[in-house]
Amino acid sequence: MSAYTRADLAALDQSDPLAVHRDQFDVPDGVYYLDGNSLGVLPRQTPARVEQAVREEWGKGLVRSWNTAGWYELPRRLGDKIGKLIGAAAGQVVVADSTSINLFKLLSAALRLRPDRRVILSTRDNFPTDLYMAQGLIALLGDRHELRLVDDEAILGAIDDQTAVVMVTHVNYRTGRMHNMAATTQRAHQHGALMLWDLCHSAGAMPVDLDGVGADFAVGCGYKYLNGGPGAPAFLYVSQRHQPEFSQPLSGWMGHAHPFTFDWQYQPAEGIARYLCGTQPVLSMTALDCGVDTLLAADLNDVRAKSLRMTDLFIELVEQRCAGHDLTLVTPRPRDQRGSQICLSHPDGYPIMQALIAHGVIGDFRAPDIIRFGVTPLYLRYVDIWDAVDILATILNTRAWDVPEFKQRAAVT
Amino acid sequence: MSAYTRADLAALDQSDPLAVHRDQFDVPDGVYYLDGNSLGVLPRQTPARVEQAVREEWGKGLVRSWNTAGWYELPRRLGDKIGKLIGAAAGQVVVADSTSINLFKLLSAALRLRPDRRVILSTRDNFPTDLYMAQGLIALLGDRHELRLVDDEAILGAIDDQTAVVMVTHVNYRTGRMHNMAATTQRAHQHGALMLWDLCHSAGAMPVDLDGVGADFAVGCGYKYLNGGPGAPAFLYVSQRHQPEFSQPLSGWMGHAHPFTFDWQYQPAEGIARYLCGTQPVLSMTALDCGVDTLLAADLNDVRAKSLRMTDLFIELVEQRCAGHDLTLVTPRPRDQRGSQICLSHPDGYPIMQALIAHGVIGDFRAPDIIRFGVTPLYLRYVDIWDAVDILATILNTRAWDVPEFKQRAAVT
Repeated sequence: MSAYTRADLAALDQSDPLAVHRDQFDVPDGVYYLDGNSLGVLPRQTPARVEQAVREEWGKGLVRSWNTAGWYELPRRLGDKIGKLIGAAAGQVVVADSTSINLFKLLSAALRLRPDRRVILSTRDNFPTDLYMAQGLIALLGDRHELRLVDDEAILGAIDDQTAVVMVTHVNYRTGRMHNMAATTQRAHQHGALMLWDLCHSAGAMPVDLDGVGADFAVGCGYKYLNGGPGAPAFLYVSQRHQPEFSQPLSGWMGHAHPFTFDWQYQPAEGIARYLCGTQPVLSMTALDCGVDTLLAADLNDVRAKSLRMTDLFIELVEQRCAGHDLTLVTPRPRDQRGSQICLSHPDGYPIMQALIAHGVIGDFRAPDIIRFGVTPLYLRYVDIWDAVDILATILNTRAWDVPEFKQRAAVT
Repeated sequence: MSAYTRADLAALDQSDPLAVHRDQFDVPDGVYYLDGNSLGVLPRQTPARVEQAVREEWGKGLVRSWNTAGWYELPRRLGDKIGKLIGAAAGQVVVADSTSINLFKLLSAALRLRPDRRVILSTRDNFPTDLYMAQGLIALLGDRHELRLVDDEAILGAIDDQTAVVMVTHVNYRTGRMHNMAATTQRAHQHGALMLWDLCHSAGAMPVDLDGVGADFAVGCGYKYLNGGPGAPAFLYVSQRHQPEFSQPLSGWMGHAHPFTFDWQYQPAEGIARYLCGTQPVLSMTALDCGVDTLLAADLNDVRAKSLRMTDLFIELVEQRCAGHDLTLVTPRPRDQRGSQICLSHPDGYPIMQALIAHGVIGDFRAPDIIRFGVTPLYLRYVDIWDAVDILATILNTRAWDVPEFKQRAAVT
């Protein structure tokens, strides 16, 4: 392993086929933004498009815009666009609500489809809301089910004939570890279990092939790699083969077969629309539409290739420049187990991340001790990786993090 | 009853204490907007505020804005603001999700608080999503409960000792009939039942006093009288006395006591925050914040007084100008039974409403035969009522509605 110079990374930027995509975004000056896995950067198109939705569609069109501006169709239309990023043929994805709410819909559906099985299997280190939603559903159903949690590495072996549904986040939010989607789905199906993927840290970060692996259900987030803006609505996927079997319990009027006949009796819509519930936030969804376009403009194979090269470089540079500072690499080294982020643990992770942010390197901290750097190839340059590690090395060498102001915890970390 | 002239109504506008509030809004030229009970008009403040949220808070502040721009606190802060409009002291209202989702949370809570009772009592003509959400919950819980539906007029007499929760929309969406909130709540409590009010057609339209009447739960909509924009997030109210007793089943991470410790086990937050679930759509919620400000700038007693005067006038003018055209007044005449809308039935209601819209009078149609006119005193003038009825009379007299183009149904009516 040779010692890289900044010039080496600048050369990579020169030949980067994705370099042109950075122009789609408004990356603030003086910021090395390594937190696109928490909130993606503002696309340049978005402000004008949102303004049009506010001033023209709402302001001038008023209620007529439900028809004339396509608001009514937006959850399905945008769902089909996201479907192209995650390997889902049209009619299987809808945008609505939050990831948490969508998990509730799908877990309910899964338990209904496997009435004789009592186990929801997941990973102990799954993103907490996934576990909380399962806990809430289980309590509501009278504690007749079990949420069984195992380590990420043990998931394949833990699937058995009691398992109703396997709920796994494809890329672990805290470690960056990526699961083998095909093998896990196959194992679930061998045991008659259903497979629910959480794509929050993979949709828009790499190619995903839900139809190809035969997944049953999936959810994902609009505000991370999809660049949809703060709290953008989430999406859900239900394989075509399961759609007619069941209508989910959050049976709001937008999932009704004929919402505007105002029948008193619920009758589920055909297809994926039955996974809609209430009226959706059109302005936030319009911003998500712009964000999804930034991904559709690129080839996700290029995105994945650049992401892996960037995370390789991040690891190598940290090992060259930050040795002897108690940092531990948490993200797996094998490329086929690595998402689009680098996580390092350090006993003083919190103040170190605050010092980094104060110096323009925006990543985030994940309790108890992890500093997390997301890699978003559409708007990051290779030299950003060099500069970020350079600043990290300086902070560690000078102990610039070891001051009271960086130790005070904020509400949102 | 004397015959009014347009000049009579212009004189009312001259002395209207709320006239100045119209300047808070961008009402399009050439439009008589009588659909603010479906989608409120764009406030003038909103475009710039949303643009700031997009360009500055998201674009420049990026993920830091969860702390620095107050995004994290927004659902609670905005909830307290809405609380001022509905008679709820601080700490009892939170903004989140949709009305439908919030109904599910509160119905679940109510059934949990009354475990030995099996009846959810509502009205047959309640807004359908309220009924659908109850149906979805009942099915999920194994059909051990009953959704008992009665006519609006019969609700008081139908409350009995089997009733777990009474779920009523304060103002009926289709008829404009208003329930007596104090008497209904009192009757529910006399029988040991809980009272859940749907305020979709009253929040921002008239003074509401949830604490005063002793309500247990309430939900309401952000996009009607609160002027929050298309699909704006909804709100929910839980009386202080019920908050510690129960945590609701949609137990997402934003309702956790410590979301950023990322514990695997759900632990509900203190207070109303436990009714949060996932991450909220910040851009749509920012627009709602501006909309709520338009109401807080006025006295809701003035709003109610003008609304009643306007609906009185609407009824009188229709009776003077549109007699002999098969129109039937559906909205109750007694002021204490009337919300802020006028509903008329007509066998050809659908094409009549389409003709009205084509002539700039925007109301809406509600199946099977109702044309509905919402009255929003902050931005409507008395002369708008005169002009709207004038156009209605012309359309009826000339049968301008009786052409094929007005009979084709749109997706959203």
